[in-house]
Amino acid sequence: MTSTVITNIRTLVTNDPALGDGGPLGLVEDAAVVLDGDRVAWVGRAADAPAADSAYDAEGRAALPGFVDSHSHLLFGGDRTAEFNARMSGRPYTAGGIRTTVAATREAGDDELARNLRRFLDEARRQGTTTMETKSGYGLTPEQESRALRVAAGQTDEVTYMGAHIVAPEYADDPAAYVDLVTGPMLDACAPYARWVDVFCEKGAFDGDQARAVLTAGRAKGLVPRIHANQLSPGPGVRLAVELGAASADHCTHLGDADVDALADAEETVATLLPGCEFSTRAVYPDARRLLDAGATVALSTDCNPGSSFTSSMPFCVAIAVREMGMTPDEAVWSATAGGARALRRTDVGRLSPGARADLTLLDAPSHVHLAYRPGVPLTTRVWHRGTPVAM
Amino acid sequence: MTSTVITNIRTLVTNDPALGDGGPLGLVEDAAVVLDGDRVAWVGRAADAPAADSAYDAEGRAALPGFVDSHSHLLFGGDRTAEFNARMSGRPYTAGGIRTTVAATREAGDDELARNLRRFLDEARRQGTTTMETKSGYGLTPEQESRALRVAAGQTDEVTYMGAHIVAPEYADDPAAYVDLVTGPMLDACAPYARWVDVFCEKGAFDGDQARAVLTAGRAKGLVPRIHANQLSPGPGVRLAVELGAASADHCTHLGDADVDALADAEETVATLLPGCEFSTRAVYPDARRLLDAGATVALSTDCNPGSSFTSSMPFCVAIAVREMGMTPDEAVWSATAGGARALRRTDVGRLSPGARADLTLLDAPSHVHLAYRPGVPLTTRVWHRGTPVAM
Ligand SMILES: [Zn+2]
Ligand SMILES: [Zn+2]
Repeated sequence: MTSTVITNIRTLVTNDPALGDGGPLGLVEDAAVVLDGDRVAWVGRAADAPAADSAYDAEGRAALPGFVDSHSHLLFGGDRTAEFNARMSGRPYTAGGIRTTVAATREAGDDELARNLRRFLDEARRQGTTTMETKSGYGLTPEQESRALRVAAGQTDEVTYMGAHIVAPEYADDPAAYVDLVTGPMLDACAPYARWVDVFCEKGAFDGDQARAVLTAGRAKGLVPRIHANQLSPGPGVRLAVELGAASADHCTHLGDADVDALADAEETVATLLPGCEFSTRAVYPDARRLLDAGATVALSTDCNPGSSFTSSMPFCVAIAVREMGMTPDEAVWSATAGGARALRRTDVGRLSPGARADLTLLDAPSHVHLAYRPGVPLTTRVWHRGTPVAM
Repeated sequence: MTSTVITNIRTLVTNDPALGDGGPLGLVEDAAVVLDGDRVAWVGRAADAPAADSAYDAEGRAALPGFVDSHSHLLFGGDRTAEFNARMSGRPYTAGGIRTTVAATREAGDDELARNLRRFLDEARRQGTTTMETKSGYGLTPEQESRALRVAAGQTDEVTYMGAHIVAPEYADDPAAYVDLVTGPMLDACAPYARWVDVFCEKGAFDGDQARAVLTAGRAKGLVPRIHANQLSPGPGVRLAVELGAASADHCTHLGDADVDALADAEETVATLLPGCEFSTRAVYPDARRLLDAGATVALSTDCNPGSSFTSSMPFCVAIAVREMGMTPDEAVWSATAGGARALRRTDVGRLSPGARADLTLLDAPSHVHLAYRPGVPLTTRVWHRGTPVAM
């Protein structure tokens, strides 16, 4: 193992309130970080930094923990550019939406799925994302879902089984039988490859009882629940998430007071907001301010998928959260790093303090505020992942 | 001179309706482009491409003309991050706004101004912008404005004299005397370095009569008018622009029917929309759809400046224009390339057809639609500027 001291960091986000200025971001000015192997060994003022095997001069840039993107759908085949173009051009488009992707994904070989996933994980990493969850949900048969998760498990350790994304076309007339499949043979085939179980609780997808059945069956097999909740309309998803101790309720766009109260009181359940989705569907944004003021824990994530949110950019999500969702730049940066880690129940990522994984993003800017101040500008200039510089 | 054939372009935007599919973007599928020295020599189907000294395989990516960014303010010193952070965090901030930048710019040496400008032009070029206008307006004395323009003229040929950005602090009690300075000795000192004259026509800045005086004085010295019009409130700016044959009326956020009619009927005046500004000030966006439906010519630009819009990203502006301003992806891409060229009265850029300047942007995507479909993702993978690949 070799060590590296990254010096001359103008602003360092540690997300450790015990370090730095005492705020939630644990800001340290004129800082240095020592990486030793795949771990952070030391954090503090540059003037006090110990020696290391090598040194990297950050030249006054800002550094923060690698982004933690806790929600994506990257196991897919096919192309939905024409559908997006029609939607944004006000032209009718008679296609199957998500079913288009299901058909194309089923046709894709394992190699194609793996190449596609690799491409998006690498693209995200060059933008500073060093932990990325991804889900199945475009296969919808035991064989298809399990092979997608097997591909995912080869490339990330945050893998989610989501056979309950939509009711498979073959079961359109018998959704109860599809839930039996998802909670039975499909779960058995998928559980070995996944850490999480997820369900799309929404009108036209799965109702509260079905969602409960999916999550409790997954939990019985050792998977931890998370849930697509209250995205398109009010519903039971958020309260179900809190009741079941899910790690996260994702979307949270249409919330009543009882939902906000439940999230505010939840010890275990994070509200994960996915502004790329509202951006790309011209929908109303979730109200992050309301959740934060109530005391909920908020994470930001891309929801990267070809249908409703094809961005892999956590910096973009930060900028939109500040513009549209009432978050301060500090809150948005916390939610995109520490918040994502909470949503994945990880304590080794989303922070830069001794013992954390050596995942560090360096910005071509003196402050993390520039992620909101300079929207769209590719500010990520260098990324360390598990202590190793990422090829840019 | 050496020639290069860029082959295997999945989708090529030429902006020449005589080429390709007959639409305004002049789309050619499975295309090739031959660059010869600093010019485009040939455009067509890849299967028909002539030989060249060297070949570059675009591997199925999309290509479009380099972006033409017709409005920026890059001749500045100082740092306004704290002001932005306070505004977006809902905290009071008692600072001088633009006057902060004026004070810092006056303190900055020529070298610092030149370095700063170089940095932003290079940053924009790596994102695909191959023509970029920039303005004075943070010096506000004859010496300061002329030295800023001299610095600008060393790095871009689209230079705008904007002594009439705000009334200089020294003239706060006598704005008429400041207009005399701007139209007299300051103009004399600045005209040799500039192509354009601009004025901020707005309550609290310069009224219609003052704006007319500034633009007509500039025109008498050989400068071509453009104008900051109807940004914060309705006003005479847009109609003045059309009356004087200005190249562009910029912002166009608060328009009455008479303004829209004037722009629709204008032969010479483009409506340049600057969505980065509304994004970063949480203001209402201009209504591009209304202008397009009326028949106006619309350009998109970044307005890159440290106060109200610190993005240099034309892809970001395209995505916001589609999300927020009713533009289709095709219209937004046209406005960010051909539209900007119109706003700068250039026929050599903003298109890819024989004789055009060899400015070409290659996207890591099969279609130009991805600029809106994948917001925030740094899709620009390779840029040719005057026939030479840009260092990424
Ligand atoms: Zn999702
Ligand atoms: Zn401006």
